[in-house]
Amino acid sequence: MCQHLFFLSFLFCLRIVPPLNYTDIITVPPLEFLSGHRYISQAAAKIDVDFDYDGPLMKTEVPGPRSRELMKQLNGIQNAEAVHFFCNYEESRGNYLVDVDGNRMLDLYSQISSIPIGYSHPSLIKLLQQPQNLSTFVNRPALGILPPENFAERLKESLLSVAPKGLPQVITMSCGSCSNENAFKAIFMWYRSKERGHNNVTKEELESCMINQPPGCPDYAMLSFMGGFHGRTMGCLATTHSKAIHKLDIPSLDWPIAPFPRLKYPLEDFVKENQQEEARCLEEVEDLIVKYRKKKKIVAGIIIEPIQSEGGDNHASDDFFRKLRDIARKHGCAFLVDEVQTGGGCTGKFWAHEHWGLDDPADVVTFSKKMMTGGFFHKEEFRPNAPYRIFNTWLGDPSKNLMLAEVIKVIKREDLLNNATHAGKALLTGLLDLQARYPHLISRVRGRGTFCSFDTPNDATRNKLITIARNKGVVLGGCGDRSIRFRPTLIFKDHHAHLFLNIFSDILANFKFWQRRNHANTTE
Amino acid sequence: MCQHLFFLSFLFCLRIVPPLNYTDIITVPPLEFLSGHRYISQAAAKIDVDFDYDGPLMKTEVPGPRSRELMKQLNGIQNAEAVHFFCNYEESRGNYLVDVDGNRMLDLYSQISSIPIGYSHPSLIKLLQQPQNLSTFVNRPALGILPPENFAERLKESLLSVAPKGLPQVITMSCGSCSNENAFKAIFMWYRSKERGHNNVTKEELESCMINQPPGCPDYAMLSFMGGFHGRTMGCLATTHSKAIHKLDIPSLDWPIAPFPRLKYPLEDFVKENQQEEARCLEEVEDLIVKYRKKKKIVAGIIIEPIQSEGGDNHASDDFFRKLRDIARKHGCAFLVDEVQTGGGCTGKFWAHEHWGLDDPADVVTFSKKMMTGGFFHKEEFRPNAPYRIFNTWLGDPSKNLMLAEVIKVIKREDLLNNATHAGKALLTGLLDLQARYPHLISRVRGRGTFCSFDTPNDATRNKLITIARNKGVVLGGCGDRSIRFRPTLIFKDHHAHLFLNIFSDILANFKFWQRRNHANTTE
Repeated sequence: MCQHLFFLSFLFCLRIVPPLNYTDIITVPPLEFLSGHRYISQAAAKIDVDFDYDGPLMKTEVPGPRSRELMKQLNGIQNAEAVHFFCNYEESRGNYLVDVDGNRMLDLYSQISSIPIGYSHPSLIKLLQQPQNLSTFVNRPALGILPPENFAERLKESLLSVAPKGLPQVITMSCGSCSNENAFKAIFMWYRSKERGHNNVTKEELESCMINQPPGCPDYAMLSFMGGFHGRTMGCLATTHSKAIHKLDIPSLDWPIAPFPRLKYPLEDFVKENQQEEARCLEEVEDLIVKYRKKKKIVAGIIIEPIQSEGGDNHASDDFFRKLRDIARKHGCAFLVDEVQTGGGCTGKFWAHEHWGLDDPADVVTFSKKMMTGGFFHKEEFRPNAPYRIFNTWLGDPSKNLMLAEVIKVIKREDLLNNATHAGKALLTGLLDLQARYPHLISRVRGRGTFCSFDTPNDATRNKLITIARNKGVVLGGCGDRSIRFRPTLIFKDHHAHLFLNIFSDILANFKFWQRRNHANTTE
Repeated sequence: MCQHLFFLSFLFCLRIVPPLNYTDIITVPPLEFLSGHRYISQAAAKIDVDFDYDGPLMKTEVPGPRSRELMKQLNGIQNAEAVHFFCNYEESRGNYLVDVDGNRMLDLYSQISSIPIGYSHPSLIKLLQQPQNLSTFVNRPALGILPPENFAERLKESLLSVAPKGLPQVITMSCGSCSNENAFKAIFMWYRSKERGHNNVTKEELESCMINQPPGCPDYAMLSFMGGFHGRTMGCLATTHSKAIHKLDIPSLDWPIAPFPRLKYPLEDFVKENQQEEARCLEEVEDLIVKYRKKKKIVAGIIIEPIQSEGGDNHASDDFFRKLRDIARKHGCAFLVDEVQTGGGCTGKFWAHEHWGLDDPADVVTFSKKMMTGGFFHKEEFRPNAPYRIFNTWLGDPSKNLMLAEVIKVIKREDLLNNATHAGKALLTGLLDLQARYPHLISRVRGRGTFCSFDTPNDATRNKLITIARNKGVVLGGCGDRSIRFRPTLIFKDHHAHLFLNIFSDILANFKFWQRRNHANTTE
């Protein structure tokens, strides 16, 4: 029984550092005292955005007394055990998140990768101050039936101005899960229409769909990958396989799940092994499509993240994805790329899948988070063949489209895609250096743009590193069972990377001290 | 083949009036010319909200030339066939929706029932203008891990200040579908925990859930009702049974579907028949629970709307719902009341299910639309037993909570629940009068507060009435296959009811003229 309890609590803490564990924080010796292997990086450049702070400033351990008080309060209303700390967003600026105890932290997690151009960006504040924009925030319409005058124009200046090549159609949604759910639906409709070969719907289909039965509700499936995360509503959840905590106790669907390549690092030392690993996974994809077809369950589409994020920042080669795209086409399945976390520029291209160099574009691409609105792009042939088939009351929110248009202007004006490439290189180079110096703590350093990550030996070490970093003024996020992921904003610059690397280098240099403290705490 | 095409197009136009059909609008004779049976109601009182207009003002047919131009534009980006017309929200105020051609219409549909206190309410505009609120709109947090300082306080002054009795816990979500999806999940977790009787999760459960299989993903079901609508994501869609267009081609789940009572009107003439009808439906609910249990599919919860809205404004008696609640308890199923459309005050109580007078409260109540944020209230025992079990990146949006707090203040200050009762009575009385005079056009008049509706002989007549009304300056919505539903804002007053009744009375008096015109159009 104890073992089971342990198993569950183990799972529950996988996702991030336990928020209430700060016993080992209070008596931290000053950094200088411990610093022996200080990471040598180029000096942090002067800040170049006028609304950013010039560094972290810590006043209490995190969560501090005010955060702890508020946690207690919130916990009376809902389970608040996931809360890290409470924030003062009014004081948060640029790359810096300020908490309610006055601590100012360099934020490399950016609200689970959902703040595109930093906190309180002046361009967005200005937008809110313009009287002509007030109505957009106050009068939220049912976009599908009564859109505002500038709806199409705004889609053009925002989403369509960054649409993946070959995907000229777009539908907005309120969140990432709804984006994937509706993308699935568009794919199922497309598949059925292809299967029918005409627009005739039988009486039997119309009647049977009302009671959830085939042929009206056909036995279609989406193929997904072990380790993938695509959301938590029931359709999405059937394709999510990153952690048990997401799925336990929720009924699901018998849909095929393929293995995702587990690459060995450094990549250059394992070229052949990794190729074989990817070939094995692709073969399994084809086998599953055939196997499921045999049991009359048709794989209508394949969903995949360009980098499995929640599942542990698992990468695969561009070649793997190109071949997967070919397999999808060969078997008549739609190819859905979930860019909810990877999209928006952090990999150095606006969409991570643009790195692959596909000949034939993806069929559907979903987005949310940094894009401020959810939704999906798709090829013409996935356009619903009648109104109300992809529909809900809000279909997104024009106030988010307004802000997104401004965000995209800033991204273009300030060349933030190239910045992500550049700052990402500084970060990755530094992480590789740290890996060389602390191989017992850091391994499998990987990344594209600022979308970087590394592994630690185990989840306890990972969580400890996150907690220590937070108390040194850096917010990091975990993923998978032992990884740390970097998800800074798009205005994260080289000097922020160096600032982080300096702090983290000191933490690693003194990690034994922390471990001793921890050991003393747990045994005393 | 033609028959099938007809069947499909028939379905597609069920939901509302076809938006592009305005051939019969252009040569409308002036109202005075046709008016013979003018409805005598008390004179419209002087407007009492300073931001409301004093009546409709029509300049073109609707959709007008500018709307049609924009429809064409939008249709290049996405299927825009559901669009009624394009709106000028800056000019829309109170109960009046202004379109891009300068037409001003009394809005009795309020964006599918999602505008609580009218367009451009001064209190909401003021909120946006306060500098201290800007950050809330610009810095959208991941609420579950990094909430703003005032998060709990704001929940208390907004949602919790109107929480249904006995449901002290609340979780916010971004939309109605996500609210129901997550409510299902909370119910499944609760049921499984009850079934386990302890917190021990087996290794088998943890492993099997990762591949969508029992026991980790148990074979649980939600019982729903024919005619119900609970959203369009895959879990919700398995409980939605209002129209085939929502469900066609989407795989679903074998979950039990009970009949919803089909009451006969006027209620006082059919007391016994209606009691029998309700008893029949309740018996079927119990039979289904037992039948599904026998095939090892456990009904963990029952979901129902207090008034089936999308499905045709179908009512049942308070007694029916009380007995249904008892059945849920008797069989150990959770009782989930979906107040996405009925909630927020339009029935004269904040929650429609408060009319029932339940001894034992509902277990879970979901909301969205007029509440500006989605989410659900629940009893303590439905609280997730660990963090991250009910979770997503945004978990709603604090800017919506901010606006909702203001909306609730306005509702209380201006006594808008009593207003809904009062104005609803004026509307219902007028509709009953029209029904008595035009029984060939209007039947089954029903309603609670302003949440009123009536039936027409068929969908063609219904759609025609909506189109004519729109061109006379009144926006109405359809539901079911032949009903018209009223979903005005909470600031809809008696004089708006009389204004509508006067216009609609004229339309009914002259309906033969419109029919002749239509006939001439279709045969010429």
